[in-house]
Amino acid sequence: MFKMKSLVSAIALAGVTTLAGAVEWQALPDKAPEPADNPTTPAKVRLGQILYLDPRLSSTGTVSCNSCHNVMAGGEDNRPFAAGVHGQTGGRSAPTVWNSAFNATQFWDGRAASLEDQARGPVTNPIEMGMKSWDDVVARLKQIPGYPQLFKDAFGEGAEISEDNAVKAIAAYERTLITPNSPYDRYVKGDKKALSEQQVRGMNTFAEVGCVGCHSGPAFSGQTGQGAGVFQKFPTFDNPFFERKYNFTEDLGRYEVTKSDADKHMFKVPTLRNVALTAPYFHNGAVKTLDEAVRVMAKLQLNRDLSDQQVDDIVAFLNALTGEFPKQSMPRLPATPGKTFDYVK
Amino acid sequence: MFKMKSLVSAIALAGVTTLAGAVEWQALPDKAPEPADNPTTPAKVRLGQILYLDPRLSSTGTVSCNSCHNVMAGGEDNRPFAAGVHGQTGGRSAPTVWNSAFNATQFWDGRAASLEDQARGPVTNPIEMGMKSWDDVVARLKQIPGYPQLFKDAFGEGAEISEDNAVKAIAAYERTLITPNSPYDRYVKGDKKALSEQQVRGMNTFAEVGCVGCHSGPAFSGQTGQGAGVFQKFPTFDNPFFERKYNFTEDLGRYEVTKSDADKHMFKVPTLRNVALTAPYFHNGAVKTLDEAVRVMAKLQLNRDLSDQQVDDIVAFLNALTGEFPKQSMPRLPATPGKTFDYVK
Repeated sequence: MFKMKSLVSAIALAGVTTLAGAVEWQALPDKAPEPADNPTTPAKVRLGQILYLDPRLSSTGTVSCNSCHNVMAGGEDNRPFAAGVHGQTGGRSAPTVWNSAFNATQFWDGRAASLEDQARGPVTNPIEMGMKSWDDVVARLKQIPGYPQLFKDAFGEGAEISEDNAVKAIAAYERTLITPNSPYDRYVKGDKKALSEQQVRGMNTFAEVGCVGCHSGPAFSGQTGQGAGVFQKFPTFDNPFFERKYNFTEDLGRYEVTKSDADKHMFKVPTLRNVALTAPYFHNGAVKTLDEAVRVMAKLQLNRDLSDQQVDDIVAFLNALTGEFPKQSMPRLPATPGKTFDYVK
Repeated sequence: MFKMKSLVSAIALAGVTTLAGAVEWQALPDKAPEPADNPTTPAKVRLGQILYLDPRLSSTGTVSCNSCHNVMAGGEDNRPFAAGVHGQTGGRSAPTVWNSAFNATQFWDGRAASLEDQARGPVTNPIEMGMKSWDDVVARLKQIPGYPQLFKDAFGEGAEISEDNAVKAIAAYERTLITPNSPYDRYVKGDKKALSEQQVRGMNTFAEVGCVGCHSGPAFSGQTGQGAGVFQKFPTFDNPFFERKYNFTEDLGRYEVTKSDADKHMFKVPTLRNVALTAPYFHNGAVKTLDEAVRVMAKLQLNRDLSDQQVDDIVAFLNALTGEFPKQSMPRLPATPGKTFDYVK
């Protein structure tokens, strides 16, 4: 039995070593893929940035996309649950907008296939931005004198302010929110001094223990055909201790979208790019620190107990996934001279 | 009696004509005055901008100075009452941060003598940013790795993160938030084409009917010794119609600070710079449009019924007080890698 176990271990070890060696470490592209019907243009990006930062897309005039997906920070709000209009909170943690252009699907449950479709959601969600309908949003935008020209600049002289054009512009802006040249990227491009010894050790451990099985590809979100694909069951292994502590299974994940039993507890594999900036962790933001998140993931997804050294090494490596953030200017939001809207109080 | 009335009118007309002619129209300075103990330096402004935009200065991690005093817009929120943590609202409309450096006193009731003192207030106001104390704010800032160096850059190698340094940095940043070169400024500097005919007419009406009695000086806030000074009773003339409609007298103004009867309904004379961008109007944000605000002011402060033409002309002039907004870059907020704060939910 002892022998047997050793043999299994040896095989497993051989297996993971092979895996680690076989990992195709990829740098983040400098440019995000664009859909054919929404090419990224400077005028569209400009409009998209303005819409993204404009709190008038909310019923109260207080919540913009940026309120919960802060582009001055890690692209989210560092809270377990985001706060929408009237301080209401939902049940899932805001995912980062940075590098979301590389996601094959959007939202924790993958209910939007594109950035365009994602952008439709929060605006009319009653606990997020609270607008009654996109018709109301469009009607409001049409009353802001600067917007018609911005939409024409972005979509052509005949273009109107519309839901489709608004979400296209927001998506085009989001496609510019990518963070290349992290220490990891520089390392895989050949600068062997870009990572510390500990970070290289963490990178190898990350591969050897199997994290890379799901978190693969240039965005570490397993969504390029490699690895476990877009969705993964979380937790994969039951663990009463962590369950009591973090209530992970309360949320049925993708099942809420499809009502298919096979999708119970299935969640999108999130990117690990800039993961050091996006605490707290998991779909319910229940885990406050990155080291605990690594421990939890190893146990629940890989049924492994990592040593403190392994955890520290992986955390060091994950910190090397923090990229360079593009310099952005602060736009002026077009004004409504001499008047305002009847915001919900 | 008829004759008498005509005579009075004639004298009054002569009087206001003299007044209009005597008005010393002043352009906005390119630079704001600085207190001796807080000179405006680039490093301080940089830190101040970051603090101003950082929602971690609120209990929930969701409200920054900029949430209610939006520098991408008119320096406030275009709402009657601002929304603080948990969507709570207070009883006064957020004043604009633009050109607030030219105010002789801060807040509607003048309870802060300086921008530094003003900045202390909202952070620990339970319905605004909701922090329990500045000690808590300082303790939080000290846990954000990037801040110690930013404070040293701003205040010298030995400098610590402290309440005083934080409010000094915020005030220094706010002193850069000035909007010169409005059409009005260009006009008074000699470019006679900068104002339309209607705007010039409005400018003269503004002077002749007496608006300039209080709204004088470079910021049209009467706070340079000229005009009625820092505070003014509002309403000066009773008007049951407007009172029923707008409840202006519910708020006792500066009396709430001094408890002196003489200060009942006294309010700071607000700047008219960029007033077209700051609807709704008055201390309680009860008036939605600028034309109605002009009508209300004429009646309640000057006991005058303006013609529609006069109102339109003054509004056209007030639109000429919208200045040039300085280009700003969007800073990165210093991160807390791998962790976050225990925000109030």
